[in-house]
Amino acid sequence: MSFERLFHPKGIAIIGASADLGRIGGHPIKALKNAGYKGGIFPINPKYPELHGLACFPDVMSLKDPCDLAVVAVPAAGVAKAIGDCGKAGIPFAVVLTAGFRETGAEGRKLEAELKAAVAESGVRIVGPNCQGMLSIQSRVFAAFGSVADETDFRPGAVSCAFQSGGFGYAIVNLAEAQGVGFRYCVSSGNETDIAMPELLSAFLDDPGTSLAFAYLEGTPDARPLLDVGRKSLETGKPVLIWKAGTTDAGIKAAASHTANMTGTYDLYRAAMRQCGIIEVDDVEPIVDLAKLFGQGRLPKGNTVGVLSISGGSGVVFADAAVRGGLTLPPFAPQTLAGLRQMIPAFGSAENPADITAALFNDKTLFARTLELVLADEGLDQLVVLIASISGPSAAHCCEVVAAAAAKTDKPVSVQWSGRQGKSEAATKALAAAGVPFVTTPVRLARAAAILARFADDRRRLLPRKVPNVTTPKGLELPTGSVTLNEAESKAVLRTFGIPVAKEVLVATGSDVAAASRGLKAPFAVKVVSRDVPHKTEAGGVKLGVSHEGLAEAARLVVDNARKHVPGAAIDGVLVSEMASGLETLIGVINDPSFGPVVALGLGGVFTEVLKDVTYRVAPFGIETARDMIAELRAAKLFEGYRGKPPADKEALAETLVAVSKMATALSPRLKELDINPVFVGPGRSGVVAADALVVLR
Amino acid sequence: MSFERLFHPKGIAIIGASADLGRIGGHPIKALKNAGYKGGIFPINPKYPELHGLACFPDVMSLKDPCDLAVVAVPAAGVAKAIGDCGKAGIPFAVVLTAGFRETGAEGRKLEAELKAAVAESGVRIVGPNCQGMLSIQSRVFAAFGSVADETDFRPGAVSCAFQSGGFGYAIVNLAEAQGVGFRYCVSSGNETDIAMPELLSAFLDDPGTSLAFAYLEGTPDARPLLDVGRKSLETGKPVLIWKAGTTDAGIKAAASHTANMTGTYDLYRAAMRQCGIIEVDDVEPIVDLAKLFGQGRLPKGNTVGVLSISGGSGVVFADAAVRGGLTLPPFAPQTLAGLRQMIPAFGSAENPADITAALFNDKTLFARTLELVLADEGLDQLVVLIASISGPSAAHCCEVVAAAAAKTDKPVSVQWSGRQGKSEAATKALAAAGVPFVTTPVRLARAAAILARFADDRRRLLPRKVPNVTTPKGLELPTGSVTLNEAESKAVLRTFGIPVAKEVLVATGSDVAAASRGLKAPFAVKVVSRDVPHKTEAGGVKLGVSHEGLAEAARLVVDNARKHVPGAAIDGVLVSEMASGLETLIGVINDPSFGPVVALGLGGVFTEVLKDVTYRVAPFGIETARDMIAELRAAKLFEGYRGKPPADKEALAETLVAVSKMATALSPRLKELDINPVFVGPGRSGVVAADALVVLR
Repeated sequence: MSFERLFHPKGIAIIGASADLGRIGGHPIKALKNAGYKGGIFPINPKYPELHGLACFPDVMSLKDPCDLAVVAVPAAGVAKAIGDCGKAGIPFAVVLTAGFRETGAEGRKLEAELKAAVAESGVRIVGPNCQGMLSIQSRVFAAFGSVADETDFRPGAVSCAFQSGGFGYAIVNLAEAQGVGFRYCVSSGNETDIAMPELLSAFLDDPGTSLAFAYLEGTPDARPLLDVGRKSLETGKPVLIWKAGTTDAGIKAAASHTANMTGTYDLYRAAMRQCGIIEVDDVEPIVDLAKLFGQGRLPKGNTVGVLSISGGSGVVFADAAVRGGLTLPPFAPQTLAGLRQMIPAFGSAENPADITAALFNDKTLFARTLELVLADEGLDQLVVLIASISGPSAAHCCEVVAAAAAKTDKPVSVQWSGRQGKSEAATKALAAAGVPFVTTPVRLARAAAILARFADDRRRLLPRKVPNVTTPKGLELPTGSVTLNEAESKAVLRTFGIPVAKEVLVATGSDVAAASRGLKAPFAVKVVSRDVPHKTEAGGVKLGVSHEGLAEAARLVVDNARKHVPGAAIDGVLVSEMASGLETLIGVINDPSFGPVVALGLGGVFTEVLKDVTYRVAPFGIETARDMIAELRAAKLFEGYRGKPPADKEALAETLVAVSKMATALSPRLKELDINPVFVGPGRSGVVAADALVVLR
Repeated sequence: MSFERLFHPKGIAIIGASADLGRIGGHPIKALKNAGYKGGIFPINPKYPELHGLACFPDVMSLKDPCDLAVVAVPAAGVAKAIGDCGKAGIPFAVVLTAGFRETGAEGRKLEAELKAAVAESGVRIVGPNCQGMLSIQSRVFAAFGSVADETDFRPGAVSCAFQSGGFGYAIVNLAEAQGVGFRYCVSSGNETDIAMPELLSAFLDDPGTSLAFAYLEGTPDARPLLDVGRKSLETGKPVLIWKAGTTDAGIKAAASHTANMTGTYDLYRAAMRQCGIIEVDDVEPIVDLAKLFGQGRLPKGNTVGVLSISGGSGVVFADAAVRGGLTLPPFAPQTLAGLRQMIPAFGSAENPADITAALFNDKTLFARTLELVLADEGLDQLVVLIASISGPSAAHCCEVVAAAAAKTDKPVSVQWSGRQGKSEAATKALAAAGVPFVTTPVRLARAAAILARFADDRRRLLPRKVPNVTTPKGLELPTGSVTLNEAESKAVLRTFGIPVAKEVLVATGSDVAAASRGLKAPFAVKVVSRDVPHKTEAGGVKLGVSHEGLAEAARLVVDNARKHVPGAAIDGVLVSEMASGLETLIGVINDPSFGPVVALGLGGVFTEVLKDVTYRVAPFGIETARDMIAELRAAKLFEGYRGKPPADKEALAETLVAVSKMATALSPRLKELDINPVFVGPGRSGVVAADALVVLR
């Protein structure tokens, strides 16, 4: 739905308006007046006919003039009724500042349930409760309380943001604003009883006045729509930055106690952001720098960068940080290099990153000439200029030259500059007029430039990807109820979804194992089959490397062991499987409360258990995403062959991951847990084999 | 030696003084006058009797008044003579601004060698050449050129710094200064032909007016003295921050081309810094924040931190970053928690990190009371207060309360605050007067607070450590010349240094292998022994798992294979070794051009080869440092026992690392390369066994 009337209301009612401007019911009135809001301001309070020079109404139903938004500041017990009133009055949106809901315990949870019901019944959409309010800078809407109510001089701009912590969110806004970032919408989203973060971000992306969206996010109960937000971000070319908080046990605990937000598993959020092109940030500085760089409205065609500096050290640290971020500093083209060599003094450097040295102070055309050369170099996708901390006329000269050069190209051009701005107004003006961003340190610039390139790359890589259609295959039969399937049943489910399983035979207890296994090739894995023994190895229910001759004895042994380990277990027989070999991996499915089905991939043994080298993607997904999962493993090199071993069949593993992702999606209403461990990835193009599997239904 | 006269000269000569204040020979005169330098300023130029209102002299020998420092700005070809003149005139120090030395090629290298000779002969100590000069803020010494010559209003303070890139270094200074950091000495060290970075840092630590030292370092030919710098830092309690640049291939290439600095191996610098307590930084912000936090002059007794915030989100992101940095946020003591529960509203949180919420605006004593409670909690080693971006009277109130509370404790107390300082002079003043530092974001504060705790911890952990004495054991005999020792010879060297080696016997070609091996226990490793076949495995010169019966055949095979692989190889026999088992590790020695002997430790197989999970320490070192090496491995958990295996004998491995570090030191004049691979670490306290070794002499 459109949030146009929320962000640009014709009139605003303050329900619970206070005679004291220092109180929560007074702040919004003060702020709206200070900000010069042009629409109607309607205090609602049955006690007064007039408040602060404004006509005051007993309730919103009494309003005659257009009113699109209510700010609610009555005590918690009265909020549900206030929302009901808005519905009657035809007010489509409300911002509920009042606290005292689920964050305060049982009584609050009851009030929040009532509020939710009032929202559903009235059709009024609400921000909050327990929030600090909302700003829409260009429309002068300051529907908020707290220190932000006193600071109505925020610079207007194209950054819209939302945060699940009002005080901290407005601190971010404050700090970013002081560093030159202009804002459009700022929303403290509070408990998100109705409007939650993904919907807000999506609305920001729909807004023509917004060019970048940012969220401070602790967690959201329905996180899957974030994938759609990411897709819309790539489609519109407007980046979405998310600061995910609660990434450690200590942070998770803190988040739980302050807003009762369920933070969810950081690993899954991280994977989801990568999967869909959302940019993760972890402090205010990256937000500032990215807002500036994206603000230029240019995206690089690739990940190369050309660097011109006036101080060698700047180039060195830029290169270090740029390469870490995924950029490359290719050699200049021969004609660029030859030209630079003629211009740059011997104690400088004509190679990328070029150091033209302080010589530019003596030769007033040097800088422009070098810049022109580098800009013409077709091997470079973006250009950065590092001018250290020069100020005054030198800074003005450099910045004017850069501004002029940037106008002649559509490549991103950015500047590192930390000169004193008080002494350098001409320089600042020149850059601002040309829309050329500057960042204070080479490291910060390198990190931001790398993210700019990655976003552009994500658009190329991720946008063409299609989420596969998932259908439940014919022949799939699942038992009802919360059941742990035995290995044979679990593998049958896998087979239904086209996942390659070891060649094997299930032999009922008492049957002739050797005869039943005649068509298989030794050596064998012999495993007890029982829903009651999900942890077969611990139970002694597995024998590996068994020969044809040893089958009968092995079968007896695994059954006896299982019976000892789980007295009374219902034994369905033994499974005789051909032993597979190859690179050992494991594939799991997590049916996450926020994300739904998610596929996990790890390498076997210590890699998963000790090094936690595991990657995730939200299901379902296609082959390209599966390939990303494999490439993201820290030990991914193992697939290329190691110590003379042939490369492993990565492509078959990727296909299997896709199949698992479809299976996870189809089964998700019933799936509690799914583990395929180990999955052997064979050499060459010999495929993969799922050697064991466990499906737990709910 | 004392650098007192360098930093506080009674008089300064400018050799190559220019009549044009805009030229390199004019800048220092302008800067010294602008800065109000009180000593004598002596332009040296035979062309003028007077320059810029100052008496001008034909040469430094003609000076009558005291002169402790010469600033040299003559062309490169004249610099060596200028230094000779300083020697004759009794001037002990010179800052050489002139460029055109080794950074420009062969001719420059010749001039630099001449300069080096002049330094040695004259006894004059020099900074530079190819540098931007030096500042000593309190003494108003601005012996520099470039933009810094125009900015003589730097805030004085207790931070001294040196940098191997003048332009970039002064950009760091500028940016840090703008964020509130005060400076004492700033030295652009240039080519470091004489005074190099470690000596400068050491001089900073000796200076009573310096409380924190910082270096921008690309590399230094003799890096080992950095370990002494670290030790002195811990002894004096003055932190040393190093920004090591050239940490990627791209950065290394850039550094090589701009100052001809050899950057060395980043891994070794990193290890050395950890070994001795030097703090690594990688951008300007951490320098600013650390300068502020250390500026309070308090160190925490442990790594716990108590947090009070007025916005929940601040506490969450603080906790995330703090825990990542190594801090812990323990639960408050019962009486603290009980007290806070009474004071803090239900929608806040009384648990660490506590969120007292905006309620403090209504109750003027609330903040002071909560602060007092938390400060009294003996389980907390430092306290941080997060006040978001409040400004005006609220900020003043909070900051005054924090300032008063900080005066009553000797624990570090710090503040996150990003309010508008223009509107909050009272707040800024209150914190400054009390010496309470504030940092702009919770994440930055958390990272800095974690480093504060780590430095305090390093003092406790590292200072008591003694570097072991190293003597060459009796009986050590090494062949002369550049020789690759065979395995038996290599292991003999190891044994001399007390390193446990597999039980084995060297059997000369033609002897009865089985008879010679009678005292050993099968299975065996049988390996060809030849200086000419250092890569035995590749040559087919190794057979593993050999039984007594198979010895003769195996011995024949490995010798035949080696002969085929290296025709004409001189075969010394075969080595029959008992097969060892346990956790597979490898120990290497790098005889680094900058650091000298360094010991490397890795886990066998993929851990070292694919994951590059290797740790380093500069040799020699004691047992505690060896334990650090083991603990630092990413897969260190493997030593604790994995999948039911018993824990491995870490302590024996640590002892072996110490022995190797002593061996590496004793052998270092002769050692080119040393590899002990594999080293099996047995279970329990069963020790370690070096199963193979290769010593390459030079």
